[in-house]
Amino acid sequence: MITTTTVKVGEQPTGDPMEVPVIHIQGQGNGPRVYIQANIHGAEVQGNAVIYQLLNLFRQYPPQGDVVMVPQANPLGINQKSGEFTLGRFDPVTGINWNRQYHFDHSMLEPFTQDYLDAEESEIRDAFRTRLKQQLEARMASPWGLTCGQHLALNLQKMAVEADIVLDLHTGPISAQHLYVPEYARKRARHFHIPLNILIPSDFSGAMDEASFSPWWQLSQHFALHGRELPVMVDAFTIELGSQEHLDVAGARQDAESICNYLQHQGLWLEHYVQPEPSAMQACYLKDYKAFFSPAGGQVEYLAKLNQQLPAGEPLATLWHFNALVGESSHSRTITLPCDCIPVLHFASASVQQGTELYKVLTNTFRL
Amino acid sequence: MITTTTVKVGEQPTGDPMEVPVIHIQGQGNGPRVYIQANIHGAEVQGNAVIYQLLNLFRQYPPQGDVVMVPQANPLGINQKSGEFTLGRFDPVTGINWNRQYHFDHSMLEPFTQDYLDAEESEIRDAFRTRLKQQLEARMASPWGLTCGQHLALNLQKMAVEADIVLDLHTGPISAQHLYVPEYARKRARHFHIPLNILIPSDFSGAMDEASFSPWWQLSQHFALHGRELPVMVDAFTIELGSQEHLDVAGARQDAESICNYLQHQGLWLEHYVQPEPSAMQACYLKDYKAFFSPAGGQVEYLAKLNQQLPAGEPLATLWHFNALVGESSHSRTITLPCDCIPVLHFASASVQQGTELYKVLTNTFRL
Amino acid sequence: MITTTTVKVGEQPTGDPMEVPVIHIQGQGNGPRVYIQANIHGAEVQGNAVIYQLLNLFRQYPPQGDVVMVPQANPLGINQKSGEFTLGRFDPVTGINWNRQYHFDHSMLEPFTQDYLDAEESEIRDAFRTRLKQQLEARMASPWGLTCGQHLALNLQKMAVEADIVLDLHTGPISAQHLYVPEYARKRARHFHIPLNILIPSDFSGAMDEASFSPWWQLSQHFALHGRELPVMVDAFTIELGSQEHLDVAGARQDAESICNYLQHQGLWLEHYVQPEPSAMQACYLKDYKAFFSPAGGQVEYLAKLNQQLPAGEPLATLWHFNALVGESSHSRTITLPCDCIPVLHFASASVQQGTELYKVLTNTFRL
Amino acid sequence: MITTTTVKVGEQPTGDPMEVPVIHIQGQGNGPRVYIQANIHGAEVQGNAVIYQLLNLFRQYPPQGDVVMVPQANPLGINQKSGEFTLGRFDPVTGINWNRQYHFDHSMLEPFTQDYLDAEESEIRDAFRTRLKQQLEARMASPWGLTCGQHLALNLQKMAVEADIVLDLHTGPISAQHLYVPEYARKRARHFHIPLNILIPSDFSGAMDEASFSPWWQLSQHFALHGRELPVMVDAFTIELGSQEHLDVAGARQDAESICNYLQHQGLWLEHYVQPEPSAMQACYLKDYKAFFSPAGGQVEYLAKLNQQLPAGEPLATLWHFNALVGESSHSRTITLPCDCIPVLHFASASVQQGTELYKVLTNTFRL
Repeated sequence: MITTTTVKVGEQPTGDPMEVPVIHIQGQGNGPRVYIQANIHGAEVQGNAVIYQLLNLFRQYPPQGDVVMVPQANPLGINQKSGEFTLGRFDPVTGINWNRQYHFDHSMLEPFTQDYLDAEESEIRDAFRTRLKQQLEARMASPWGLTCGQHLALNLQKMAVEADIVLDLHTGPISAQHLYVPEYARKRARHFHIPLNILIPSDFSGAMDEASFSPWWQLSQHFALHGRELPVMVDAFTIELGSQEHLDVAGARQDAESICNYLQHQGLWLEHYVQPEPSAMQACYLKDYKAFFSPAGGQVEYLAKLNQQLPAGEPLATLWHFNALVGESSHSRTITLPCDCIPVLHFASASVQQGTELYKVLTNTFRL
Repeated sequence: MITTTTVKVGEQPTGDPMEVPVIHIQGQGNGPRVYIQANIHGAEVQGNAVIYQLLNLFRQYPPQGDVVMVPQANPLGINQKSGEFTLGRFDPVTGINWNRQYHFDHSMLEPFTQDYLDAEESEIRDAFRTRLKQQLEARMASPWGLTCGQHLALNLQKMAVEADIVLDLHTGPISAQHLYVPEYARKRARHFHIPLNILIPSDFSGAMDEASFSPWWQLSQHFALHGRELPVMVDAFTIELGSQEHLDVAGARQDAESICNYLQHQGLWLEHYVQPEPSAMQACYLKDYKAFFSPAGGQVEYLAKLNQQLPAGEPLATLWHFNALVGESSHSRTITLPCDCIPVLHFASASVQQGTELYKVLTNTFRL
Repeated sequence: MITTTTVKVGEQPTGDPMEVPVIHIQGQGNGPRVYIQANIHGAEVQGNAVIYQLLNLFRQYPPQGDVVMVPQANPLGINQKSGEFTLGRFDPVTGINWNRQYHFDHSMLEPFTQDYLDAEESEIRDAFRTRLKQQLEARMASPWGLTCGQHLALNLQKMAVEADIVLDLHTGPISAQHLYVPEYARKRARHFHIPLNILIPSDFSGAMDEASFSPWWQLSQHFALHGRELPVMVDAFTIELGSQEHLDVAGARQDAESICNYLQHQGLWLEHYVQPEPSAMQACYLKDYKAFFSPAGGQVEYLAKLNQQLPAGEPLATLWHFNALVGESSHSRTITLPCDCIPVLHFASASVQQGTELYKVLTNTFRL
Repeated sequence: MITTTTVKVGEQPTGDPMEVPVIHIQGQGNGPRVYIQANIHGAEVQGNAVIYQLLNLFRQYPPQGDVVMVPQANPLGINQKSGEFTLGRFDPVTGINWNRQYHFDHSMLEPFTQDYLDAEESEIRDAFRTRLKQQLEARMASPWGLTCGQHLALNLQKMAVEADIVLDLHTGPISAQHLYVPEYARKRARHFHIPLNILIPSDFSGAMDEASFSPWWQLSQHFALHGRELPVMVDAFTIELGSQEHLDVAGARQDAESICNYLQHQGLWLEHYVQPEPSAMQACYLKDYKAFFSPAGGQVEYLAKLNQQLPAGEPLATLWHFNALVGESSHSRTITLPCDCIPVLHFASASVQQGTELYKVLTNTFRL
C-alpha cells in the first residue's frame, strides 16, 4: 500500500508553510526499514527522478520492509533563485550548508553503553533508537527555538531515525557518479556498482548520512572499548548521482536499479529482481579525496575528464587571463596536479577567483 | 602595431577602480574602424576566447582599419558570484540589465537633418559622430552623476562610437549560435554564416548594438522623410556564440573566422584570407522570435534540440511535479508549442517557477 | 460584512502555490470602490500595518463603497532573502522590478474614443472598464504564457481595475513620507496631508498607480482632442510611508487616518470621521525629483536630514575613503548639491559604489 | 613614523587583485605590538571610523610599541552587494563565514611544551611565535591551494601573529556595543568600559580573536598540566561597536578612546592620555549568551530595548501575521523569554522565517 502525506518543515515570512511530500510504502513482511530523500540541496534535482523510478520499481516489486521516500526535501533551497540558477546549497540568510544541521549529541553513548552492555542486540537497537528519538524531540522542544535549517533537518531526521537504511540522494556540481561509504559498510557498498567511492570515518559533522550511521557506529566503538563486539545496526550512504541542475528521468532508472541491487542484498525483497551491470569500482580514503583550489583568478577550460585516470603532471585545466592577452606568456597557464588521480567533479562556472575549488579528485586509489 | 591600455569604468566601495583591458590594433591603411567587446554579461565568457582568436588572426593578417577590442568588458558583472554561478546579467543593486544602459537621445535628429540635408556624406558622417560624442560627454558630465551601469556603459560607448563596425559578443543561457541583425544589414549579415538570425528594427532600448546602429539608421530614416537617401553608415551586431559559463578556446577559432569573413567583405583587409564553410541560415523577424514561459512550477527535462525544426505539437519539454508522484496523472506534463519553430535557447536551471522563460524559438522562419 | 479569500499569483518550482490574502469589505451603500495593496516590494512592510489600521477603521466606520485590501501582495518578494535583508525589489531571476510589470495597451484608446464620443459618462465608464478587463484577460490567456512577474501583476491588476480609487502602499529605503500625485488629482491629493509630493504625468511605464490612472487619464486626453471634456474617472496614488524593513503598527494609525481623510472627501463615508493634523505640503514636478549618484566608491555618512530644506552647497553626505586614511587630504570628501532641495530619501547601506543612488531630493519646490 | 602599504589577499576572476590597506606606526620604544583590523564582515563599517580616530590619537600621542592597522580588511565582502545591502558576512560561493577561516593546528602544543618546559618566558614566546608563523607558512604553501577565504584569513593572520595585542573590530546587525572577552583577560577587559561582555573559553573555531589567543592560552594550559604556570602572553578581543551599515565618524572617537584606555593600561604609552567615562559593565558566560529563534514566520516589531534589563515574560517582540488579519486572535503574537535577560542585538530585517535569529541576549549576568 502506497500513501502520501506532507510534513511541515518551516514557515515563510508570509506565513506560508514549507512542506515536504512523504511517500510511505508499507512493507509486505519483515524486511529492513528504508528511508530515502532527495534534493536537500536545491540545485540537485536528479534524486527526485531516482525516487520516481524507485517508486515504479516498488510498485512492481512490493518490498518486505517499510519504505519512506521524500523527494524535494528542501522547499526553501529548491525555490531560492539568484539569477537563473538555484542558490540551494546553503541558507541564504546565514550561509550554513543545509546538509550540516542534523543533530547528534554523543554524550549519551558512554552511559548508554554501560547500561546495556549485556543486553540483547534487539533490545539495544530498540532502546538506542528510542534515545535518539528523545534527543531529537528534546532539541525540537527548546524554549529558545531552532534555526530555520534545524527545523528542516530535524523534521527529516525524525523520519530517518526510524530506518535501518538511509540513503541521501545528492549530486555534485559537474560530476561523475560517486558514493560516500562509511568504512564499516565497505563490502556491502559494492552492491551499488558505483564507480567512484570515498571511504569515510565515524565522525559526525552534521550531514544526514553521518547523523544516521555515526550514533550506531560510535555505539559499536563504545561497546568494543568495553570488550563486546556489536555490529553497526544502521547503514547510511550519500549517493552523488551526477551533475546538478540536470534532470534525466529515463537515465534515473539505472540509478534506481543500482540502489535496488543494494537493497535486495540487504533483504528488502525475498528474491533478487534487478541485475545491474558489473562495473569497475575505485575507492580512496576521505583524507585522500583532495580538492584543488585555483592558484589565481581567471576563466577556466576544464580539461581533465571525470572518472578517468589522470597521471601526475598532465593538464587538469587551463586558466585564462583575458586581461593580459597581448603578452604571449601571460595569457594563460596550464594547471597540473602533483600526483596521479581520478577526477570526480569540477566547478560549475567558467569564472573563478583565486581559491575557487576547481576539481575534486581521488588519490591513492584502490579497488573498493 | 598592437598596444594595450586600460579604461576605468567604475569604482568599488573599497575605492578599488574597475577597469577594462583595451587592445588597440593600428590599421595598415584605409579600412573601416572596428570595435569588438565581450563579456558584458558576467557569465558570458566565450567572447573573450573569440577575441583571443581574433587577436591571433589580426597578428597574422594585419588589418587596414583600426581595431579596438575589449575582453572582459564588465568587471563588476564578471566578479559577481552568488553561489557557484556568475550573477552577471544585471546590476545586483538595482536589477537593471547591464546591456540596457547605453545612451542615445534622438531629439537631435530632426534639427541635425535639417542642418545637413545637402551636405556631403563624409561631412554628415563626421558631424553626426561628433554630435554623438558630445551627447555622451554631456551625459557623463552631469552634475547629478551617473548610475553604476551608466559609468560602465558610457565609457565603453565612447570607444564604440568611433567605429564603423561594432560587434558585441554575447552568449545565451543554454544556447545555439545566433545573430541579431538590423534589417538594413540583412544581406551583409550572411557573411557571418551564423545558422539562426533575428531581424531587428531601428528601435533603441539601451543595448550596445542598438546604441551603435540606431542613431545612424534613424538618421537615414529622417533624411528619407526629407527626400534624401542616405545609407546607414555604421553596422552593429550582437553575436550570441553559444552557452554561458562555458569556455572553449580552440572552438572559438571558428567563430573568429566567421567574424573575419564578414570583416573582409567590409574591407578590413585588401584580400580575403579566411574561407568559412557555407551553412544554412534561417531567420525570422523580432516579433516572431518568441519566448515560451512555463505554465506551472516544476522541474524540467528540456527535450527539444536546439537549431532543429520542431513541428507544432511535438514535445518541447517535460515538466515534472515531484511533489505529486503518487498520482500517476499528475506527476508530469508534456509541453508543446502551438506552431512550428526552431528552438534557439533554453533556461539554464532544471527548477522553474510558473512564468520562467523555458525556451526561445524562431517562428515564421525564412532563409536569411 | 468582511470576508477574506486568497488569490493565487504564482507557483514555485516545488509546486507550492504563491497566494495573496484578499480582504473584502462590502459597502453599505453607494460610495466609490476602493482597492489598496501593500508590500509589492518585499522589504516594504509598513503598508501591511496601515492596512491593519484601515481594517480597524473600516470596522468602526463601515464604508459606503466596497473596499478590497491586499496585504503582503508579493509572496515571492517578501520571502526572498539574501543575507539578513529582504531582496524583494526585483525578480531575482530576471532583475525586473516587481512594480513595472502591470499591463496597458493604449492602442485601443483612439477607436474607443471615436465609438463613445457622444455616450453618457456612466456608459463610457462601464464600457472602458470592460475593455480594460478584456485586455487583461487576453494577456493572461496568451498561449506563450506570462513571466513570473506578470502572473503576479496581472492577478493583482484584475482586482484593481474594478476600483475607482487605487492606493499602492510602498516605502523608500531610508525615507521620509511622500506621495506620487498624478497632476490631474493635485487638489484632491492635499487631503492625504503628506508633506512631500511628486507630481507625475500621464505616462505609463508599468507601475500599479500608472496602470490604474493612465488609461483613464489618456482617455480623457483623447476625448479632449476630439473636443469633449471628460473627467479622469479613477484616482490612483503610490504612497511612500517611510523606510523599508521597519514595522511600527501603532504609528501606522496616523497614516491610516490620513488615507481615510482622502477617502472621506471622495465620499467613502457619508460623514467625516477622522480629522488629521494639517501639515505643510511641498511638491515638485517629476522632472525636478532628482537622484544624486555617488561620484566615487566609498563609505558614507548621510548628513542631510530628510524633509528639511537643504541650501545649495550645504553638506549632503561625507564619502570616506578608508583605503587612503594616511593622506590627510584624500581620506574623505564632502558632497554637496548644485541647488536648493528637500531630501526625501537616501540609500540604505553605508557602502557605495561609484554611481550608487545616494539621495533623492525635491528641487524647484512649491506648495502642493 | 607612519607608513602605508597594501597586502594582496586574493584575486578576482577578471585578474584584479584584492588588496587591503595596511597602516604601520613605528613604536617610540619598548611597548607591546598591537594589531587592529576592521570590516572583515562587509557590512560592518564602523570599525574603519574607529581606526581613523585611533590614527588621529596615535599621531597626537606616538605609541611605544609598533601598531599595525588594517581598515576595510575584506575587499570581497565589502564590495559584495545583493540588493541595496552589503552581503558581506560569508563567502557568496560557499556560504562560509569570513571570520571562521583562520588557522591553528593544536597538535604541536604537547611536543612544544615538553621541549620548552624549562625555558625562559621570553624564549618560549619567541619560539612559539616562530612555530605559529611556520604553521601559517606551511599552510599557505600547500600544493593543493587554499580557499578564497583562507587566502584572505591567512594573509591577515600573518600580520596578527606578530602582535601581543589583537583587536578585531566588528558590529552586530542592530546592536548595542559589546565585547568578547577571553576568560583569562577578564580583569584587563574592564579598561574598555564596554557595557556588555561575553566571557569565552579557550576553544578555537576559526575566528580571528580565537586564532590569536587560543594558541597562547592552550599553551598555558599545557604548561599547567606539566606543573608550570605560564601567563597567556597574547591578548585578543572582538569588539562589537554597534550596528552594521552605519557610519558615524565623530561617534567613533569615543570607541577609540575606550580602546586607548585599554592600550595604555597595557603599556602602549608611558603615560595615560585618555580618561574614558566609567560605565556599568555587565557580563555573562558564552553558554548563557542565548539566541532566540522566531517560533513562526511573520513580520516583526522589535520591542525590547538593547542594553536594558528585560524581566522574564515581558514583551520581546510582536510577530505579525498579515495574512491572517481578519481573525482577531490570529493576526499577531507577543513573544517573551523564559528568563530575565539583557538584549544585546536583534535581526536587521522586519521579515522573518520560522527559525530566524530574532534576538541575542545576556542571561545569568553579573558585573564584569
